[in-house]
Amino acid sequence: MSWQPKTTSNTGKFEVVARKAAIREGVLALGAGLPAGETLPAHELAAAFSELVSTTKGRDEALQYGWPEGAAALRQFVVDRLVRRGVKISPEDLIITSGAQQALELSLLALKTLVAPDARSVRVDPQTYSGALELMKSAGWQCSTDDAAPVVYAMPAIANPTGARDLESTTLVVRAHKKGTHPTRWVIEDDAYVDIAFDGFTPPSLLALDRESTFHIGTLSKSVCPGLRVGWVVPPPSLARTMLKLKRQTDIQTSSLAQGLASTYLSMIDYGKRIDGLCHFYRNRAEAMMSALRRRLPGWQFAAPEGGFSLWIQPDVDIDETRFLAACLECGVGLEPGSAFRPVSSEKKHSISSGIRLCFSSLNELELPEAVDRLAHAVDVASR
Amino acid sequence: MSWQPKTTSNTGKFEVVARKAAIREGVLALGAGLPAGETLPAHELAAAFSELVSTTKGRDEALQYGWPEGAAALRQFVVDRLVRRGVKISPEDLIITSGAQQALELSLLALKTLVAPDARSVRVDPQTYSGALELMKSAGWQCSTDDAAPVVYAMPAIANPTGARDLESTTLVVRAHKKGTHPTRWVIEDDAYVDIAFDGFTPPSLLALDRESTFHIGTLSKSVCPGLRVGWVVPPPSLARTMLKLKRQTDIQTSSLAQGLASTYLSMIDYGKRIDGLCHFYRNRAEAMMSALRRRLPGWQFAAPEGGFSLWIQPDVDIDETRFLAACLECGVGLEPGSAFRPVSSEKKHSISSGIRLCFSSLNELELPEAVDRLAHAVDVASR
Repeated sequence: MSWQPKTTSNTGKFEVVARKAAIREGVLALGAGLPAGETLPAHELAAAFSELVSTTKGRDEALQYGWPEGAAALRQFVVDRLVRRGVKISPEDLIITSGAQQALELSLLALKTLVAPDARSVRVDPQTYSGALELMKSAGWQCSTDDAAPVVYAMPAIANPTGARDLESTTLVVRAHKKGTHPTRWVIEDDAYVDIAFDGFTPPSLLALDRESTFHIGTLSKSVCPGLRVGWVVPPPSLARTMLKLKRQTDIQTSSLAQGLASTYLSMIDYGKRIDGLCHFYRNRAEAMMSALRRRLPGWQFAAPEGGFSLWIQPDVDIDETRFLAACLECGVGLEPGSAFRPVSSEKKHSISSGIRLCFSSLNELELPEAVDRLAHAVDVASR
Repeated sequence: MSWQPKTTSNTGKFEVVARKAAIREGVLALGAGLPAGETLPAHELAAAFSELVSTTKGRDEALQYGWPEGAAALRQFVVDRLVRRGVKISPEDLIITSGAQQALELSLLALKTLVAPDARSVRVDPQTYSGALELMKSAGWQCSTDDAAPVVYAMPAIANPTGARDLESTTLVVRAHKKGTHPTRWVIEDDAYVDIAFDGFTPPSLLALDRESTFHIGTLSKSVCPGLRVGWVVPPPSLARTMLKLKRQTDIQTSSLAQGLASTYLSMIDYGKRIDGLCHFYRNRAEAMMSALRRRLPGWQFAAPEGGFSLWIQPDVDIDETRFLAACLECGVGLEPGSAFRPVSSEKKHSISSGIRLCFSSLNELELPEAVDRLAHAVDVASR
């Protein structure tokens, strides 16, 4: 007897494959959207830690309990960046979370207080971040591409998995809603990849269009370090108190230490310069992967990404996904199933021709062509 | 229109008072169960950080994404301590969480898959940790002292707020349940204060009595540092997969950085020696507060605590709680309302004679008598 909605059926099975890939020596990971190890500022963070604990105030803030909304300096940093994107908010308007994932979880919890159980559906893109889909489904929300859903989940700045900048169409949805011609009531703007834009352009936030109905989500996981688990949410003003209460009940607060460390580090560097460097870095990796694909798997279709960590591919071969993932592992390459990125998966068997995500972020320019070689090899193996 | 159960009614109001107390210069905090600032190992953690990022392996583990169950070395540390308490488990059996609060939240979420909505009630002590009560109520669970509830929440090693060791009665509940004479099905053992026992005795865990039905919860917040937000849960084996999935969906994983830092620090120190020192330290503070109370407020009743950070007091005066808290703030002392620690609060007005929690943990031996003086003064002010 289960009182909870079922989650994506295949997740458990594929996690087993992912874990095998992770521990097998020499497997090249194309599955997980990890930032490149070289970009993680280990020594700078160690210096920031020493700096932080050198003062009584810093020690207290980093090691002791704090308020659920998070550290003031860190909230100020986020606000300063949002203000430059046309948003009128102050540090009181946002809550620091344990990564973007928790920001989404808390947003869905808050929405549950306003959306009746039988109306809980979310409009998502045809390809949507698997972790968001899994969470939404598990929390009892229907996910579909239906514009009539009361909630829209979107990554307009840079989408995962496509790497597309989809500001226009999302803006249209939001504008139409504002005019009352659209039934959607709430928008979740997941801006996890906003700072990894290959042309360096940072678009306005949806908050600037519709502060009242937008949950804005961000994170330092892509631009600084995922190990910090520092993200944030700007809830709609009407849900701000509810969200803060939910955050406190969920885990009291996000790690003071991670927050203190993050804000000290950010005060010591030129963040704008850092993300310029990252954009250049990941653009090179994206290009290395695209050239390898064009050369080695010329029938595979994709749109060049505008940012992010991954490509969304339509392979020109019809191979069962499970079979293909097993072949990939055999050939030394790790992959996440494409079906995990689709809101509705009614078919029992999934074909890779429906799309797969390839992450280029954590492999270097020598490993990327090698990984694509192995993918091509896996196609042969699985087609036998 | 609200689809979510209401939370404790007074929480918001009292948080306002707590926040006022926190920012007002010179207020002595008796409200929050904070570890003493002097005990927080700032420089040792800074040394651990440098150690951690000095190797490629350490850098990867601390800064990159990890698995939802948490870091292997840290899980091994927790398991080693539990094995010495008669528990047969291995590191695969536990999940690192963002503090004990999240461990409780995930346990309640997992229980929702097994306990029907109309049966969701939890048996708690007459005085129970306010954060747990607030979370349980908000998550839709009835809290009462009724033994017939399908879930028991208990802190048998050292209880908050009483500081009592309540192993015997909790054991009776669990044993009776095992023999099938008791209707309770699940036990949540919150061991947050187990390492702060004034006689240095660490009792067996309920896991040793009933592995199948026990959620065991622990944390480093009291013995190392709350800013880490590192806790854990050992779920019943039948719910282990569900719990891991919930953890992943909630926030992917607990901060790798906090986990790496914690386990490196723990490998550098003698933890047994550290907690011996802490027990001695907090026993002295408890005694300083008890003497001050006996001297200054001789009519106030309390049992000497066996550990923890607080005393549970029955004042001999009948003053409205809200009025008393305001008087306390006026007199320079911060307090949490006693009603927040009671499972059922049907009365509209709460009297302090029903009980209040006084935390001695974060004030030193000079501040404690001063804080009690101010309390006595607040009684006069509020009685006028």
